[in-house]
Amino acid sequence: MYNEKFMKRAIELAEKGRGYTSPNPIVGSLIVKDGEIISEAYHEKFGKLHAEALAIKKAGERTKNATIYVTLEPCSHHGKTPPCTDAIINAGIKKVVIGSIDPNPQVNGTGVKKLQDAGIEVITRVLEKECYEINRGFFKHIQTNRPWVTLKLALTTDGYVADSQGKSQWITGKEAREFVHQQRKQYDAIMVGAGTAVKDDPSLLPDDKSGFIPNRIIIDETLSIPYKLKVVNDNFRNKTIIVTCIQDRENKKEELRKRKIKVIETSADDFGWVDLKQALEQLATRGITSIYCEGGGQMAGSLVNAGLVDELQIFIAPKILGEGIFGFSGFMKTLDEAIQLEWDDPQKLGSDILLIGKLN
Amino acid sequence: MYNEKFMKRAIELAEKGRGYTSPNPIVGSLIVKDGEIISEAYHEKFGKLHAEALAIKKAGERTKNATIYVTLEPCSHHGKTPPCTDAIINAGIKKVVIGSIDPNPQVNGTGVKKLQDAGIEVITRVLEKECYEINRGFFKHIQTNRPWVTLKLALTTDGYVADSQGKSQWITGKEAREFVHQQRKQYDAIMVGAGTAVKDDPSLLPDDKSGFIPNRIIIDETLSIPYKLKVVNDNFRNKTIIVTCIQDRENKKEELRKRKIKVIETSADDFGWVDLKQALEQLATRGITSIYCEGGGQMAGSLVNAGLVDELQIFIAPKILGEGIFGFSGFMKTLDEAIQLEWDDPQKLGSDILLIGKLN
Repeated sequence: MYNEKFMKRAIELAEKGRGYTSPNPIVGSLIVKDGEIISEAYHEKFGKLHAEALAIKKAGERTKNATIYVTLEPCSHHGKTPPCTDAIINAGIKKVVIGSIDPNPQVNGTGVKKLQDAGIEVITRVLEKECYEINRGFFKHIQTNRPWVTLKLALTTDGYVADSQGKSQWITGKEAREFVHQQRKQYDAIMVGAGTAVKDDPSLLPDDKSGFIPNRIIIDETLSIPYKLKVVNDNFRNKTIIVTCIQDRENKKEELRKRKIKVIETSADDFGWVDLKQALEQLATRGITSIYCEGGGQMAGSLVNAGLVDELQIFIAPKILGEGIFGFSGFMKTLDEAIQLEWDDPQKLGSDILLIGKLN
Repeated sequence: MYNEKFMKRAIELAEKGRGYTSPNPIVGSLIVKDGEIISEAYHEKFGKLHAEALAIKKAGERTKNATIYVTLEPCSHHGKTPPCTDAIINAGIKKVVIGSIDPNPQVNGTGVKKLQDAGIEVITRVLEKECYEINRGFFKHIQTNRPWVTLKLALTTDGYVADSQGKSQWITGKEAREFVHQQRKQYDAIMVGAGTAVKDDPSLLPDDKSGFIPNRIIIDETLSIPYKLKVVNDNFRNKTIIVTCIQDRENKKEELRKRKIKVIETSADDFGWVDLKQALEQLATRGITSIYCEGGGQMAGSLVNAGLVDELQIFIAPKILGEGIFGFSGFMKTLDEAIQLEWDDPQKLGSDILLIGKLN
């Protein structure tokens, strides 16, 4: 109970770094002495001091015989900063309480061992699931060199993303749309297909632009994106990444890059479409550990069919159209071969239902 | 609290009559004296004694100055049984606690008034919503001369009722299918289209055949149903009703009726399909107050589009097919004209999600 209470606070601290640390994890840490928190810290930005090192620094002399809580196993290797295990040992801390073990092959249990070898009591896996969840992008990235992908779809009750005239604004209600805006702050990047970008001209930005701004990824096989769109025109266009598989159109690539927009090239898949696995790998190499994909149906279908989606967020609106545009397209499975997922507990959000499912 | 506790028990009693009272409502009643229940009863069967009359009969002499609880307003007119208000007055009961008011134009408040005129204290609308819910078929029937229709659909995550080869067994898991079997005991009739009857040859019976057996309605515009199917062949075939709009085929109609199967005729709608509104009205006239419709997609579409569905029960299986057979077909709406519903709180049932929505 005691440990969980402090770990919960450490998770809250970790969340303050959300968006600024990738491809590093978010980490929170706090130091407790005589039952009182004497220092709190979190990993504030990629390259900056790690959470536990910062907590120790803030606590100064008082760390002697104290207990440190940290959401992720402390590192034991020299990276951009010195090993946190050394900082803990040198601070005279007598007990370390850890949330999740770091799967990074350079850490993965060696941090715990180094602390134990120094005679420090180590307790691991406190609120492990929660500590894992907050860094699912980091874990996925380090283990597969691909980002965590959450695919969001707003469907009618009969499974359509738009009516037969292509109209999709708005299938869902205000609460669902607000939830999506909140989600945009939780991912390193927001991704849509060029079709959606052209049709809706979305900014793909969270409502609150004072904090972290995610990257915006446009999958555009023919590089047909018009210059007038928000994503290539607004003040955040240096956060836009266009992924294409077109071989030529060097002038357009040049012009986009001149506007500070990144252009990534992949090979084309069998349908002449951007090879999405390759795209995700290239994005991962650029430090993107998590992506929130907002459609459309063709990309949704391709991503799911290629096994590249980790989480599905489906809003089911209380509307029936009879006919419309499909949410997933481009493949066909029999019931026996169906792509399987696992539902979390569902919830009602305004007048819509939110279903979250995990794949893989 | 006190009133609600006893009313809750009266609702439990009412449920014991489920299936046997239509087109009359289910009703539960109990008599309380000095804080103790001295008598319990429910409306056991159409034509039999009403719940409150039976509770009074069971209590004998002890009703003097007692309180009676009844889920539905006591009747004040002579029907198959004498007015319950007379029985209550004659029994010397001093207080009547009522759940829902009877919308039956022959009652609708007159029961309450008659009791009050006799100097009896009357409290109404205790657990009104619950008391209304248990008789939603009765209320719908008496107010519209149509049955309450619940439409059940098992959909994949992408909205299909079957894969592209037509296979639908089983989209949902065991828990969802058990739920459906439980539901079959709650309705006067189970309804499917002939296509579903032929494809799956379902019995449409609850697992437990010792209790109430619902009617089975097959919508069969061409009267093409083969004699070998369970619904026209098994021991419960006298509970089968076939609705057709074909003018001829008198021999087949005759043969089916010889087998104790009821055949109902409606006019054809613009597509040559059974006029479902007419069908429901005819079924209502035969005392059917509630129907559980189990598909397929054409009937689901027609019913929803005609505004004949009161409740939608949608199971969403954790499966994605990419392509398949639609859950609702035969109409097309724009987003602005979409058929609207209102979701209840969703729930997880085994590995599936159950969404319940109300229309109208």
